[in-house]
Amino acid sequence: MRISELSRRSGVPVATIKYYRREGLLPEGRALNPTAVEYGEEHIQRLRLIRSLIQLGGLSVARTREVLEAVDRPLDAFETLGVVHHALPVPSADKAGKGSQGSGQGGGQGDSSPDSAADETTSDEGSAARVETLINSMGWQISGGSPHRPALAESLAALTRLGADYTTDDLIPYARLATATADLDFMRLEGIDDRIALAERAVFLTVLFEPVVRLLRRLAQEDANHRRHHRRASGGSEPPAE
Amino acid sequence: MRISELSRRSGVPVATIKYYRREGLLPEGRALNPTAVEYGEEHIQRLRLIRSLIQLGGLSVARTREVLEAVDRPLDAFETLGVVHHALPVPSADKAGKGSQGSGQGGGQGDSSPDSAADETTSDEGSAARVETLINSMGWQISGGSPHRPALAESLAALTRLGADYTTDDLIPYARLATATADLDFMRLEGIDDRIALAERAVFLTVLFEPVVRLLRRLAQEDANHRRHHRRASGGSEPPAE
Repeated sequence: MRISELSRRSGVPVATIKYYRREGLLPEGRALNPTAVEYGEEHIQRLRLIRSLIQLGGLSVARTREVLEAVDRPLDAFETLGVVHHALPVPSADKAGKGSQGSGQGGGQGDSSPDSAADETTSDEGSAARVETLINSMGWQISGGSPHRPALAESLAALTRLGADYTTDDLIPYARLATATADLDFMRLEGIDDRIALAERAVFLTVLFEPVVRLLRRLAQEDANHRRHHRRASGGSEPPAE
Repeated sequence: MRISELSRRSGVPVATIKYYRREGLLPEGRALNPTAVEYGEEHIQRLRLIRSLIQLGGLSVARTREVLEAVDRPLDAFETLGVVHHALPVPSADKAGKGSQGSGQGGGQGDSSPDSAADETTSDEGSAARVETLINSMGWQISGGSPHRPALAESLAALTRLGADYTTDDLIPYARLATATADLDFMRLEGIDDRIALAERAVFLTVLFEPVVRLLRRLAQEDANHRRHHRRASGGSEPPAE
């Protein structure tokens, strides 16, 4: 197909396709003659992955290139997932959700106060130790280079500074629920062997499904608040809705 | 105490304190004489809440004012929590994490591609219906004005557009885990009756603890990937680490 059809079928504007090609994200098509280039199904698949990484994953073009190179290397599924997983923006506590910046779209909420860097985040030793204890208690196998380990220590340190200390024992029930959630996530990957499809799913699961998990927690909190209120209002008995 | 001590004890710069006072977020102190103003412990507590809302919650000054006015009204704990909960930024799928913008700090990741608005998000009818079915199946009590209901529909619609459709049945196990997580959250609120303290905790739980929940999910995914790989490598038997 020509670039116009590639654009139509992928939903990606021609100018964007050309940009991705210039940046080395999208392989060249097959030159039919000096002015016409032919694209195939693999270009559509690749464009979908690029869009997932950049638009949904919030990755820079440079990071996207790294992930695509990893996907193109003959790694097994485990390694492919690991590369994608570690390349994605890491959730952060310093500013809520700062870790998952979109692509230059932040701002607009208008906090123009003269904020200082007073509470710059560095994870204290206590929080790093708590993370290690937690990982060991859970029997989790986490690679040494995981960006999620220091990020969690940092989040816990921020909570501690604000007087909301979470001990390892407080965190274990949350970690158990996280394990159950991750098991649900991986059930969606069963039977996918194609590396590009797998990388795409990893982006979906980690990034695009994340708001769903967060929103379900918010809705469940609303319900918990309602139940709690109802229980109080009805003098301590259990709510009928449960 | 004078403003300099208020600044020292709260960790908030004097210029920021003055800014919050001008914006009506922080009540005036008691005037000792035309040049000296006396602040009390209630100002420290209020400053902590303001900082939580703006810095961690990512709220604008105007939104923060609304929340503070609600906290100051004689509502019960249930209503106070509801107001805070609905004022906080809503997670969104359109750009990962866009819903929880920090305060004007986004960007910098450098996706400067000429992106179009091709996949503008509007929740399709199917996704809104799925959310209603889910809420009913779970027996959740969600108020009509909840911002989380349309946001979830939007996230599901985005997944559907990308070919990753989640049915109500797919979502129910996630919703059950979210309920269990919310119950853990609310255990932390037991026994807190002071409205300002409660509002502060609601911000902590919803916003500041959210990165912790997300990071635990990421770590659990890393572990799930490892276990899955191990199971394959050892020919289908269960991993010993579990």
